[in-house]
Amino acid sequence: MKYLHSIVCALAVAAAPAAVSQTGQEDTTHSRQVILIIGDGMGEQQITIARNYLEGATGRLLMDNMPVRAAVQVLTIEDKPAGKPVYVADSANTATSIATGVITSPGRIATSAGTDEDLTTIVELAESAGFRTGLVTTASVTDATAAAFVAHISMRLCENPELVDEVFYDAGYRDIHLGGCPQDARKRGGPGAISEQLARSSVDVILGGGARHFAVRTEAGHGSVLELARAEGFHTIDNLEQLQRSQPGRPLLGLFASGNLPLRLQGEAARIAEKPKPSLLNRLHPYLGSVTLPETMACEPNPAFKGTPSLKKMTDTALEHLAADNDRGFFLMIESASIDKAAHKRNPCGSIGEVAQLEEALHTALAFAAKHPQTLVLVTADHTQAAQLVPYTSLYAQFPVPIYTPGHLARIETPEGGVMAVNYATNDFRREEHTGAAVPLYANAEGIGRVSPFLPQPELFAIMVDYLGL
Amino acid sequence: MKYLHSIVCALAVAAAPAAVSQTGQEDTTHSRQVILIIGDGMGEQQITIARNYLEGATGRLLMDNMPVRAAVQVLTIEDKPAGKPVYVADSANTATSIATGVITSPGRIATSAGTDEDLTTIVELAESAGFRTGLVTTASVTDATAAAFVAHISMRLCENPELVDEVFYDAGYRDIHLGGCPQDARKRGGPGAISEQLARSSVDVILGGGARHFAVRTEAGHGSVLELARAEGFHTIDNLEQLQRSQPGRPLLGLFASGNLPLRLQGEAARIAEKPKPSLLNRLHPYLGSVTLPETMACEPNPAFKGTPSLKKMTDTALEHLAADNDRGFFLMIESASIDKAAHKRNPCGSIGEVAQLEEALHTALAFAAKHPQTLVLVTADHTQAAQLVPYTSLYAQFPVPIYTPGHLARIETPEGGVMAVNYATNDFRREEHTGAAVPLYANAEGIGRVSPFLPQPELFAIMVDYLGL
Ligand SMILES: [Zn+2]
Ligand SMILES: [Zn+2]
Repeated sequence: MKYLHSIVCALAVAAAPAAVSQTGQEDTTHSRQVILIIGDGMGEQQITIARNYLEGATGRLLMDNMPVRAAVQVLTIEDKPAGKPVYVADSANTATSIATGVITSPGRIATSAGTDEDLTTIVELAESAGFRTGLVTTASVTDATAAAFVAHISMRLCENPELVDEVFYDAGYRDIHLGGCPQDARKRGGPGAISEQLARSSVDVILGGGARHFAVRTEAGHGSVLELARAEGFHTIDNLEQLQRSQPGRPLLGLFASGNLPLRLQGEAARIAEKPKPSLLNRLHPYLGSVTLPETMACEPNPAFKGTPSLKKMTDTALEHLAADNDRGFFLMIESASIDKAAHKRNPCGSIGEVAQLEEALHTALAFAAKHPQTLVLVTADHTQAAQLVPYTSLYAQFPVPIYTPGHLARIETPEGGVMAVNYATNDFRREEHTGAAVPLYANAEGIGRVSPFLPQPELFAIMVDYLGL
Repeated sequence: MKYLHSIVCALAVAAAPAAVSQTGQEDTTHSRQVILIIGDGMGEQQITIARNYLEGATGRLLMDNMPVRAAVQVLTIEDKPAGKPVYVADSANTATSIATGVITSPGRIATSAGTDEDLTTIVELAESAGFRTGLVTTASVTDATAAAFVAHISMRLCENPELVDEVFYDAGYRDIHLGGCPQDARKRGGPGAISEQLARSSVDVILGGGARHFAVRTEAGHGSVLELARAEGFHTIDNLEQLQRSQPGRPLLGLFASGNLPLRLQGEAARIAEKPKPSLLNRLHPYLGSVTLPETMACEPNPAFKGTPSLKKMTDTALEHLAADNDRGFFLMIESASIDKAAHKRNPCGSIGEVAQLEEALHTALAFAAKHPQTLVLVTADHTQAAQLVPYTSLYAQFPVPIYTPGHLARIETPEGGVMAVNYATNDFRREEHTGAAVPLYANAEGIGRVSPFLPQPELFAIMVDYLGL
């Protein structure tokens, strides 16, 4: 009866009579909270890779100890009404599933596939019902995951007013057109670019990166988006010291990097996965010659991370702001975004460090929930990613031929003295693809009886809405 | 309260007073049973691929509806006492974890890493305590997963007496030495090759493939291993008709193919994943030229499967034999082995068909459990596999350059009208590698309170032993 025992214990902790607030006072409110933690791209392969490095092969992550665990069916459709299924998602359509309960097409932010209608988000419902709301992310706050909880726009890349009509990628020799959101421009009666929608939103706390999307002029052109945010009532900050000093009472917008926040960890000498190097003979015939695999490496702190607020620090501040003198409760979304972004760049140490950031934020969330009994804590991923944990020694090592991945490989020395091989091989382009497997979902004891063992991703919206009574 | 509701319902069904046996009579015994179903290589990627094809993107597999779901930490060590962790497993060491509760090294069958000591299996404990036992697999019955529940040998490839000293792979131009089990030979006081150990075992039902490992002479040389099995009391059969006619009462050994059983499904015209074909220009520079991807295909029945007993048919017969006039109960292991074997060969339709076989066997097991309340049904995988569900349309499709996997790709037309892309890219050798992620575990309502949300693979042994009171 181990499991029931742990549930009973968890319930006992959660329902402890001496429930005290973060400031040490007894929690006498009847507030209800949802803290939703999203590990972008954090599928089972990525979790195992991070566990092996951070806690050892027999170790346990904090999320492993949560009393509820389920699998979430990730759902995507083509961009037309009654579109056919698309079997691999992006972060925009998955965040839309979670934030609105509606399945949509890749790239869409809280708008419907084909018909382009605005979809009501849990943040909007929560605000209408008097709850406070917060968004915390290690990405730009205008990036897909956070955006889908507040903004409504047809394409995720329309992050600021300069990008609302058309988005180009500067490929050096030419510009590549990546789409645009002309119908969403304010000049055409739309809600505007993502940063402008955030600046006009009623979200109480927005923390992350993306200052450059607020530095540009609004569509109307009477100043920057950041100035608009201030005019709309946001207290704006841009560094760690200000974050730590910030006091509840006013809406808070913290932008701590131009784009996404720097990664916490990197490979030795900033190395990422590399292509194995076959000998000339092996290029001629796969059974001949030899191959040189990438040298093993440890992970090390990323110097660029210095001075960056950790996901935990941002979470601490968000919780203080959201919980202060609040009898109603709140909805808070916390994203560790660069598990995915580092995997796109074939940077396994980067992904591992961002799982560690998620774990720290989860620690803070669980500590808060222990003091505020009616707090549902959910941890999930939006979709899976290219990284695969592969053998250090091939299953076929006795065969006297070179056997190696055609993709990119990193071989990471773990603190416990093993070597873990991580493969990226969905393409040879500058960025890897997502993959399509179901993703994990974890919940604290408040999730017992609410989270079934297998559920479609849009059901997350229903669970949270139901918990808050929206 | 959906989840609790479903648990209560499941319990209600399981504990229904009108519990009747398979023959329609009331079940008045106090027997206890464990039915353990192993999908070899059935990680989350593989399950999602199979679900999309078999039930549709929004569909549910039978296992998705089970009331208990957990993640299992797969553990492997180097082949020495106190060996360091190995981060990717093989089916021998994982089956040993499940069958004996002890972590061992790759290739080992119920023997200890480094010290090569025999490890007591749940089958042996169950037999000692008066339970019947059975092993059913779509692989050769001498293959690693089934073997580890009964045999004790240092290397999985020592499947018959001719292979006990040394195992060679005939590579045409030369033989490649793959190891051997000289210390396990009977002539040196060991238990002998795997088939000989099975022939001398007390297992009540053994069904699967592997006739060729029983056709060779025993080590002593007084006849074949099959003759030995008969002399030891086994009723031996080798075709579907005999399987359907077989009556309980004597130990049953059914061998329905020379090696592994044929796969149920295959790709159109027996196609498997293929390498994308870059144009000459693209070979010169990755941003130039074009690429021809493999044509899409449906899955179709494998003609070679005709006349092969399905995993469900074998499960039906095994349950009849194990349950007949049995007041004590039984332990039954059922393996869908070729989810893994097809993935090694980059055959996604093959793997999908074998997940379908597992689902049918699970249906039979759950029906049995509904009539015999004290039956714990577990479904799990031993390790994850190379297959990845990747985008049909690249995330970067707007970039005017060919973007494609450096590995092997299949593009499968699903019955619901989508196209699902499956990538294999752990190596370019004739067989793909395993991967190292945690694997799913499902249980029926008897698992509630026994299965925690996250557990090390050896704990499966403890759960089953505890359930049977061993
Ligand atoms: Zn991504
Ligand atoms: Zn295998």
